[in-house]
Amino acid sequence: MRIKFHQGLDELKVLLLSMAGMAEQAIQRAVDAFSQQDVALCERVIAGDRAINELERQIDGKAVYLLATEQPTAVDLRFILAVLRMNVNLERVGDQAVHIARMGRDASAWPAADLPVDIPRLASLSAAMVSRSLRAFVEADEELARSVLVLDDEVDDLNRAAFRDLTQAIQERPDTTRQALNALLVSRNLERIGDHATNIAEDVIFWLSGRDIRGDAAALAARSA
Amino acid sequence: MRIKFHQGLDELKVLLLSMAGMAEQAIQRAVDAFSQQDVALCERVIAGDRAINELERQIDGKAVYLLATEQPTAVDLRFILAVLRMNVNLERVGDQAVHIARMGRDASAWPAADLPVDIPRLASLSAAMVSRSLRAFVEADEELARSVLVLDDEVDDLNRAAFRDLTQAIQERPDTTRQALNALLVSRNLERIGDHATNIAEDVIFWLSGRDIRGDAAALAARSA
Repeated sequence: MRIKFHQGLDELKVLLLSMAGMAEQAIQRAVDAFSQQDVALCERVIAGDRAINELERQIDGKAVYLLATEQPTAVDLRFILAVLRMNVNLERVGDQAVHIARMGRDASAWPAADLPVDIPRLASLSAAMVSRSLRAFVEADEELARSVLVLDDEVDDLNRAAFRDLTQAIQERPDTTRQALNALLVSRNLERIGDHATNIAEDVIFWLSGRDIRGDAAALAARSA
Repeated sequence: MRIKFHQGLDELKVLLLSMAGMAEQAIQRAVDAFSQQDVALCERVIAGDRAINELERQIDGKAVYLLATEQPTAVDLRFILAVLRMNVNLERVGDQAVHIARMGRDASAWPAADLPVDIPRLASLSAAMVSRSLRAFVEADEELARSVLVLDDEVDDLNRAAFRDLTQAIQERPDTTRQALNALLVSRNLERIGDHATNIAEDVIFWLSGRDIRGDAAALAARSA
């Protein structure tokens, strides 16, 4: 029974890593497609979201099944709850990639414009946050998870600068309004991806320590129950 | 033991309803503050987010505690998982209200502009989705929950129209770029609130039926386990 349970936990981990791989690939492809105005690649990202959603449901079902049949406690319970939360966040990373791909498809109808924003840099930072938070999960490395939270500030700063510079560009060159707006929204999507990576890192910390804010709240609830 | 457990579930429900009340109030206030360029009210919404986050952690802790100590199954397990998910979504509704309030604070630095967008209408639709999804939860009404999903299409359409009209307004009157951008982003925030309400409605359906897509995935996982 316990062996089968731990097998179940391992399977859950493997599935979540597939999910992470798909989400990371979706970001990468969406940003490439947007930057190169590659409509075919945009369509592939949009179509690929169905598989990510399907995998989300599979992971969700498996996690709920393990909770229902094995009634885990302590670190195993925290592991399953963390997987449930990471799963939601990875699915939303996929959604953000779809938003970016849609912008790319739309952008292809407009002439390319030289804009004051470094989308590839923002994209590589956000993607690094996602992969680092997942590496923290695989290696059960709380310190690594904490380092993701620091990167998030950098992404937020870049996004704020993009907003400021693109707003100015729109006012100075109204003919590039549409392109600048697209870039501005993509920048926000990438910032959101950073937020999801931050959530994942927090879930890893919750799983490993139970000492973080969520753990404190649980302790509090336990005392007051 | 069981009596205490059901008491725990009731307490969880009461807490979640407080959370919902706070989130709904935050939307309402944020939109009023944005529309009236009321900086003091914007600041109140921004400051109020701390209490929402605190309550989120309290609910989360209580739910995890009940899972850990009572090892619920079937409908009780689904109830607690649904509360955990709704909780995250309500917290994010609060975050969107903060984004809107920040836009309002920023907008107050610029002269009011007459823009082709009906923010109050979009806001009242999104807020109605949130309160309807919560009413479906309180009354355990699956049909009501399903009706929320229909409203989401309307909100999406309004948001798309806002994007199109505001982009055109920016091109025609570059001097109102900043105000139009703010309105465009607020419109997106309201659309996101609709998405969170949709998620909540889906959580209610999951709790009540276990027959929805998530239920199917759980059954699938059970078979393949």
